[in-house]
Amino acid sequence: MAEERRTYDEKLARILKAAAAIFAEKGYHEASIREISRATDVSLSGLYYYFSSKEELLYLIQDHCFTTLAENLDRLLEQEADPARRFYLMVDNHLRFFVSNMKEMKVLSHELESLSGEFRSTVNAKKRHYTDVCAGVLEAIAPADSKIEPRVAVFAIFGMMNWIYNWYHPGRDVPVAKLAEDMSQLFLRGYLSGEAGGSGEWDGTTVSEPSPSIWRT
Amino acid sequence: MAEERRTYDEKLARILKAAAAIFAEKGYHEASIREISRATDVSLSGLYYYFSSKEELLYLIQDHCFTTLAENLDRLLEQEADPARRFYLMVDNHLRFFVSNMKEMKVLSHELESLSGEFRSTVNAKKRHYTDVCAGVLEAIAPADSKIEPRVAVFAIFGMMNWIYNWYHPGRDVPVAKLAEDMSQLFLRGYLSGEAGGSGEWDGTTVSEPSPSIWRT
Repeated sequence: MAEERRTYDEKLARILKAAAAIFAEKGYHEASIREISRATDVSLSGLYYYFSSKEELLYLIQDHCFTTLAENLDRLLEQEADPARRFYLMVDNHLRFFVSNMKEMKVLSHELESLSGEFRSTVNAKKRHYTDVCAGVLEAIAPADSKIEPRVAVFAIFGMMNWIYNWYHPGRDVPVAKLAEDMSQLFLRGYLSGEAGGSGEWDGTTVSEPSPSIWRT
Repeated sequence: MAEERRTYDEKLARILKAAAAIFAEKGYHEASIREISRATDVSLSGLYYYFSSKEELLYLIQDHCFTTLAENLDRLLEQEADPARRFYLMVDNHLRFFVSNMKEMKVLSHELESLSGEFRSTVNAKKRHYTDVCAGVLEAIAPADSKIEPRVAVFAIFGMMNWIYNWYHPGRDVPVAKLAEDMSQLFLRGYLSGEAGGSGEWDGTTVSEPSPSIWRT
């Protein structure tokens, strides 16, 4: 029974990986189950043993990603009490996960809205949970007099990390350990230095330029 | 003649704005010219006076965005010599532009690969030009002993800024001037504090966790 379960899981994992690659390449709406069948060498009826629609397949990919990401982080945070180290573990875990799964990252970024109903609300709840855990890690390092809202802080570091699917080439760019070091230090020092920042900092005046709507000529 | 040109430009601007909203909502591949015709109240043949294919329409949106963004930045940088101020102007310009054009931002992020051939290479060249200008602004503030590669630095700040289309709600979140202040300070202080960073910083040890491929169980 356990053996059967393992075979089931492994085959599903292989299908989800192939499907994520195809969704990342062509977009969810353009991709067909037939292509996924060809790529995995699993018949259409064999595929429908694992999911009953293309939307459920997209859901399984997204759900699996957020679950794994959050579980990995929980495991790492359990063993560490120091707030700055916890922050570093969060960045390192997030970047390692997505560098290893860049196609999935693109699918998560581009195709959340392709889910509807319960699929979408389940994934949204997991995403929110993960965001909350990360916000908690940030809260523990926030300077008491921080002028940056927690929501801005957490999405600033998420943006820095998540954007890598647009530019980062494993092998060509810096290794992921160095990337995690750079990003966590950039953010942490910027966040902690607060109002006592170093020389050359912005002098506090705002720009008077009007909002540049591109459609006004 | 100038009057006709202005009417032409204004009508095109209105069409591009409506099309960007529809592409952002449904995705480029799912959207039809017929819907854009309905949304703009311009007939199909009227639309084809401005572009000859859906792909050209997508190109016009992307090209117009990068051109405007870069021209606005050039204008701002011309008037400022101080490196930290120039950096702030870059962040402020980028954020203001995209907060005013969030649907276009989503289209730029999600649909570059939907362009092919000359359309794609033209947009890519403009994007590269804009990235180069921003990299130059960063280079001028980079500490001499910075351990962060210029490429990592520029995409870290781009990621922080570009990710806003996933979370930022104008009116509900902090105003864009505050967002620009927060992000530029976060980045600038983090970047400038270099190895002389404050307390609580990451201690330099790396995590020994293996790379978490989600598909291995």
